[in-house]
Amino acid sequence: MRRYYIKSEPVGGKVALDKKDSHHALNVLRLAAGDEMEIVTPSGDLFLARITDDKAGVELEVLEELVNESELPVQVTVACGISKGDKLETIAQKGTECGMYDLIPVALKRDVSKWEGKKAKNKVERLNRITEEAAKQSKRLHIPPVWDLHSLSDLLHLAGDYDYLLVADEELGHANQHDKLHEVLSRVQEGQKILALFGSEGGFERDEIQKLQEAGFQSCSLGPRILRAETAPIYFLSAVSYVTELAKG
Amino acid sequence: MRRYYIKSEPVGGKVALDKKDSHHALNVLRLAAGDEMEIVTPSGDLFLARITDDKAGVELEVLEELVNESELPVQVTVACGISKGDKLETIAQKGTECGMYDLIPVALKRDVSKWEGKKAKNKVERLNRITEEAAKQSKRLHIPPVWDLHSLSDLLHLAGDYDYLLVADEELGHANQHDKLHEVLSRVQEGQKILALFGSEGGFERDEIQKLQEAGFQSCSLGPRILRAETAPIYFLSAVSYVTELAKG
Repeated sequence: MRRYYIKSEPVGGKVALDKKDSHHALNVLRLAAGDEMEIVTPSGDLFLARITDDKAGVELEVLEELVNESELPVQVTVACGISKGDKLETIAQKGTECGMYDLIPVALKRDVSKWEGKKAKNKVERLNRITEEAAKQSKRLHIPPVWDLHSLSDLLHLAGDYDYLLVADEELGHANQHDKLHEVLSRVQEGQKILALFGSEGGFERDEIQKLQEAGFQSCSLGPRILRAETAPIYFLSAVSYVTELAKG
Repeated sequence: MRRYYIKSEPVGGKVALDKKDSHHALNVLRLAAGDEMEIVTPSGDLFLARITDDKAGVELEVLEELVNESELPVQVTVACGISKGDKLETIAQKGTECGMYDLIPVALKRDVSKWEGKKAKNKVERLNRITEEAAKQSKRLHIPPVWDLHSLSDLLHLAGDYDYLLVADEELGHANQHDKLHEVLSRVQEGQKILALFGSEGGFERDEIQKLQEAGFQSCSLGPRILRAETAPIYFLSAVSYVTELAKG
């Protein structure tokens, strides 16, 4: 069934599609009064709705709330350094498919690429368009917001909001300490929040790792193979999904 | 330490680099007689070696075998339909990072893209170059071979070589049956072989699923969100790595 992401919450069980979606529903899909569709509200609820009026656009009445399990049982915030090329776009797109809750770009010392002024604004806008499109394609209700570029100290100010703070640190992989992620994922409870930070290609300076550790971040390895900057968050989210969605029984 | 992938096995503890690698070692890295390097043999063993002669190229003596844990404890063959654009390249590259053993492109009925004649040959050559480069970058010893395009019946002929046969089937995701992968991964033993088949964007025809099931393939879901064709194998390999490498204790 066709699904539309509406821009405002239903009032009194009624809501309208905007001009663009109305055009799509009426002229592309040829829906008409009496037809049903799924709507996702800005707060991420899913409803079955029926078209009541198709004259000046699509007006709908809400029929019932639908159960949807497309969101990870835990909230994972992906924070990542600024990599070259389109790597952040890959993280935005595939992270959304794999259940990422939101994405925070972070300026780290070893980043090869820098975002400044207008460029930062354009990049973030583009990443938000990517997560929106990917959320719709993967049938998620929640569209992961991409936040403005943070400094490392901005990020550290957010630490108190999370139950688990992790940093994916390649040097730990070298040291063959692979049990930290498992330790966290075997304890995590539904509804808890994880903040996971990933470096760019350049990784981290030791003083950044030290600041992170002082703020309560635990280093975790993602296995014995070196992962590219854009692959590491996908591996991480896949492991979270596997543990909390596939292996929960 | 610099690592070279040599083309022939050492004989009597001695081996030479080929012309290109010799040039790189001597003229780019400025190595000379007495310097040490790591070498990976065609059979995937890792050795420490020392340069004994640098006149007409690099000649080496093998010093000792090194322990390396960069290979997944289970062999995962990724078989996948022919997707559009560069999606198979993404699977080749990131699958290699995530520990894929080899890659089999399979022609499925709903593939949007077709490989025929010369095009198939070129595609497979290109994918082999990608897995080679990715294996070196992620410090793997084994370079995942990419096989020639298989028909579904070619693939079914290989089924007997594997301990587990899985097909990632989106319709199962819809039905909320998420426990099959966990069931398999909680039983799999070191050294066993998994063949996992993924559809292209178009997925599978029901008669293909039926043939697969008759050949012993089990359908498995990769969670409640719809994953793109190139994301599904990465999710799968990440889950295998998590279970067999990070959560094994």
